[in-house]
Amino acid sequence: MDHTQHNWQVIRFDGQDALSLDDEIAIEFPLTVILNGEEFATMVCSPTDLEELAIGFLASEGVIRFYDDIISLSIDEGKGFAYIDINHNIGSIQQDHSKRFIGSCCGKSRQFYFKSDVRTARTVYSRLSVSARQCYTLMAQLQSESKQFIRTGGVHNAALATQDDMMAIRTDIGRHNALDKIYGHILQGHIPVKDKLIVFSGRISSEVLLKVSKIGAGILLSKSAPTDLALQLADDLCITVIGFAREGKMNVYTHPQRVVEATEERLMEE
Amino acid sequence: MDHTQHNWQVIRFDGQDALSLDDEIAIEFPLTVILNGEEFATMVCSPTDLEELAIGFLASEGVIRFYDDIISLSIDEGKGFAYIDINHNIGSIQQDHSKRFIGSCCGKSRQFYFKSDVRTARTVYSRLSVSARQCYTLMAQLQSESKQFIRTGGVHNAALATQDDMMAIRTDIGRHNALDKIYGHILQGHIPVKDKLIVFSGRISSEVLLKVSKIGAGILLSKSAPTDLALQLADDLCITVIGFAREGKMNVYTHPQRVVEATEERLMEE
Repeated sequence: MDHTQHNWQVIRFDGQDALSLDDEIAIEFPLTVILNGEEFATMVCSPTDLEELAIGFLASEGVIRFYDDIISLSIDEGKGFAYIDINHNIGSIQQDHSKRFIGSCCGKSRQFYFKSDVRTARTVYSRLSVSARQCYTLMAQLQSESKQFIRTGGVHNAALATQDDMMAIRTDIGRHNALDKIYGHILQGHIPVKDKLIVFSGRISSEVLLKVSKIGAGILLSKSAPTDLALQLADDLCITVIGFAREGKMNVYTHPQRVVEATEERLMEE
Repeated sequence: MDHTQHNWQVIRFDGQDALSLDDEIAIEFPLTVILNGEEFATMVCSPTDLEELAIGFLASEGVIRFYDDIISLSIDEGKGFAYIDINHNIGSIQQDHSKRFIGSCCGKSRQFYFKSDVRTARTVYSRLSVSARQCYTLMAQLQSESKQFIRTGGVHNAALATQDDMMAIRTDIGRHNALDKIYGHILQGHIPVKDKLIVFSGRISSEVLLKVSKIGAGILLSKSAPTDLALQLADDLCITVIGFAREGKMNVYTHPQRVVEATEERLMEE
């Protein structure tokens, strides 16, 4: 049995007609991270790939940068705890990690970061390029792998891919968690990412974009829409954002030089 | 001009054909809450209804319970700050508000809450009832009001409604913010909610469900899917959850007694 979902007795209406039946519901699982012996954070997630999630979450928060920063890691799935010891003190990080930072010290238009992001967000120097056809194929693969979405309607997917193939797909009820699981997977496996892209089902907010910059991928391909702040950051950090990738269409928002057809001189003006 | 969106130069692909054009992108705006003179939190949001957002956010976090807990409130929209003074100390709240609480003290199956939720989540005694037709109409109204979604594809909507009519609709790039804006609107206007329902475009997680319980509405109607934890909480807290409400269909997950047709004896078994 798939332990990411439960059955639930539902009354399903079609017009005025009601039918009582069993339906599959996505499970929401609380995972509390105990860092160097202290409660650090609790997230709610889908109960899969919890080690990767914990690693990716700490990296996203700027608490660790490498897998080797972790001395020990164990998951108590029954109680929903991740016990993690790292090789440095976390005092200053906890104070900073939700503090707002406004300044012009790190780039022309970076109006807004959290302090921890200033330390870890980085410009991505990737020479990877993709074609529109490759993007459509990758997005179709992500969709067809996400069977749970079709059943429960409640999960997001994130994937690491080469131009031609999916390398790993992770699923979660939270779009940030799905991306953190991929991040944890990359760190744990010491996987180089400069020649890879991130394929994603969720909306591209500044937080998602900053995660991709920390991961170090040069292309973010998503089914959904970006925000303006995400695009400004992508512009600064040299990340190609492709959104609304669905049904053989897509929008390239930033750094189109990594999309083959967008670099040629056959672009039509509106 | 609508100040919730920007124009952005996009390369739009249809198949292999690429066209350069101006597209509308949802704005993501950082709002930092300064509470009793100290930085409390920063959220990213759509820059509308910022007073309501700040009020609803503090209520969701368990920092205030009533509008009258607020002594003063001012918004600096240019810099993205909300300055709020409240009539009590916030020391203990800040420690608790992300701490996990596991216990059986407050109900049969309430496996998981944040500590602040234990204090503020409450069972909803509402005698409101709706028909399936009313639900379809309300959801259609929410959708047709959400023109921005159609243009930018990046926002959520939350509304307060009677069985027959929308009372207020709020929009945000974050589904939690949209709901917080409605919560703030209710508190600020001292609007009674026992005879109202919440109409929502987003996924129903435990956090969304807890917000609705704090708001005190007996029915949550959403276009999207619920999680199992949200349904367990809804079961406990006596909230009727209706999900997947779209195109003349919907699922009633909990407390069907508030849906007219679901209470009659003409339910068919699968």
